[in-house]
Amino acid sequence: MSAGESWEIREDEQLDDLQNGYHILQAGKGFRFGMDAVLLAAFARVKPGERVLDMGTGSGIIPILLAARHETAQITGLEIQPYAAAMAARSVAGNGLQERIAIREGDIREAASIFGAASFDVVVSNPPYMTGRHGLVNPDEGAAAARHEILCTFRELAEQTARVLTGTGRFYLIHRPFRLAEILDVLREYRLEPKRMRLVFPFADREPNLVLLEACRGGRPRMQVEKPLVIYERQGVYTEELRKIYAGGCI
Amino acid sequence: MSAGESWEIREDEQLDDLQNGYHILQAGKGFRFGMDAVLLAAFARVKPGERVLDMGTGSGIIPILLAARHETAQITGLEIQPYAAAMAARSVAGNGLQERIAIREGDIREAASIFGAASFDVVVSNPPYMTGRHGLVNPDEGAAAARHEILCTFRELAEQTARVLTGTGRFYLIHRPFRLAEILDVLREYRLEPKRMRLVFPFADREPNLVLLEACRGGRPRMQVEKPLVIYERQGVYTEELRKIYAGGCI
Repeated sequence: MSAGESWEIREDEQLDDLQNGYHILQAGKGFRFGMDAVLLAAFARVKPGERVLDMGTGSGIIPILLAARHETAQITGLEIQPYAAAMAARSVAGNGLQERIAIREGDIREAASIFGAASFDVVVSNPPYMTGRHGLVNPDEGAAAARHEILCTFRELAEQTARVLTGTGRFYLIHRPFRLAEILDVLREYRLEPKRMRLVFPFADREPNLVLLEACRGGRPRMQVEKPLVIYERQGVYTEELRKIYAGGCI
Repeated sequence: MSAGESWEIREDEQLDDLQNGYHILQAGKGFRFGMDAVLLAAFARVKPGERVLDMGTGSGIIPILLAARHETAQITGLEIQPYAAAMAARSVAGNGLQERIAIREGDIREAASIFGAASFDVVVSNPPYMTGRHGLVNPDEGAAAARHEILCTFRELAEQTARVLTGTGRFYLIHRPFRLAEILDVLREYRLEPKRMRLVFPFADREPNLVLLEACRGGRPRMQVEKPLVIYERQGVYTEELRKIYAGGCI
């Protein structure tokens, strides 16, 4: 931490070093950010001066990772859970990023009325992967909402994303491959044309467990499927590409 | 060739050995089957006694490859081009497969009226990859129709497939990744739920150039994305999996 930064850290919170000059507060017992956020921040293409919205920002990890990569971007994080929104705002303040990142408490399903139509060039989101019917639901409310579509469905996210994006805006998201057909379908329904896809494989010869997608508002139907993004060279050892991503690289 | 088989080979045709006990006639100058057909035949899961339809069978390569893998399957190949259909029928006869493979001259767009609704357990297709607007159009009519959606669009293929399949029937196809979003979308529109996908990579660290898909009529939305199928270990040397596929293995 550099001098001059002041951190308000509550009981049960931890301050973690992001190794990129910034730190982040995370609830000790609740949902903690994972590699998904890091991959998405590396995958999103943000041009100088663009306005970016993170739908469901949680601890604010994606805005902070994007701010480290894109110096002139103006980033907003929308978060429905009051405690998470407040903690994210303290992380932004602690890092001295108030001029570049705004945290807004509110519901993704009301994003277009909160921010107005066509108000962002880029939307990013690391949404909950599970529908109501699949997997274990975490008893911690915040963690449950991060993993399950309790507060917002993918369809609602896509609908609001299409509305807050400019006519040529871009949407970057990460999700689970098992929902790919449905996700591509819903994106197209809201005229968010899938243009770039990268599957994430834990090992080169295993099934993918994540998928990164770029959709362009009003784009023509033609998608670039990129080479595999492989996490581990062997057990416990990241591939060179993963090491570059953690060091702040883009993919 | 074993004794007892009789082949009618016309001028400008070649008889190629499939290395699986069967041979195939191909027009020397027209469209010749490629690795796509081999991959699709290995990817399709056919259970004993199932009725299989190949939409746009061309030389009949896929029925013959399937017949070699699945001894009790009843396979029909539908082909609109009279010359190709007749040549395919001669390949079937030459191989002594008349009891197991029927070649029918006709239009994919009329498949449901030709065969009747719910008349097949499995449909396979290696359709043209390009829409009218993309790529070079081959001056040879047959080759052009094999590559470009001149005689039938993907939507027409999906619509007819949904109609000729039984209520729990399966559709296997191979296509280009750049059309993936559109293809998944159209499949779902006709209630052919994508259930399994495998991307084909020429090399492990390159972009995929083909995609294999299994869709189930009336299935629930959940797709298995499988590990990458890699063609070359290094320049000119197939991977072990490819060697197994060419030796008659399934994937």
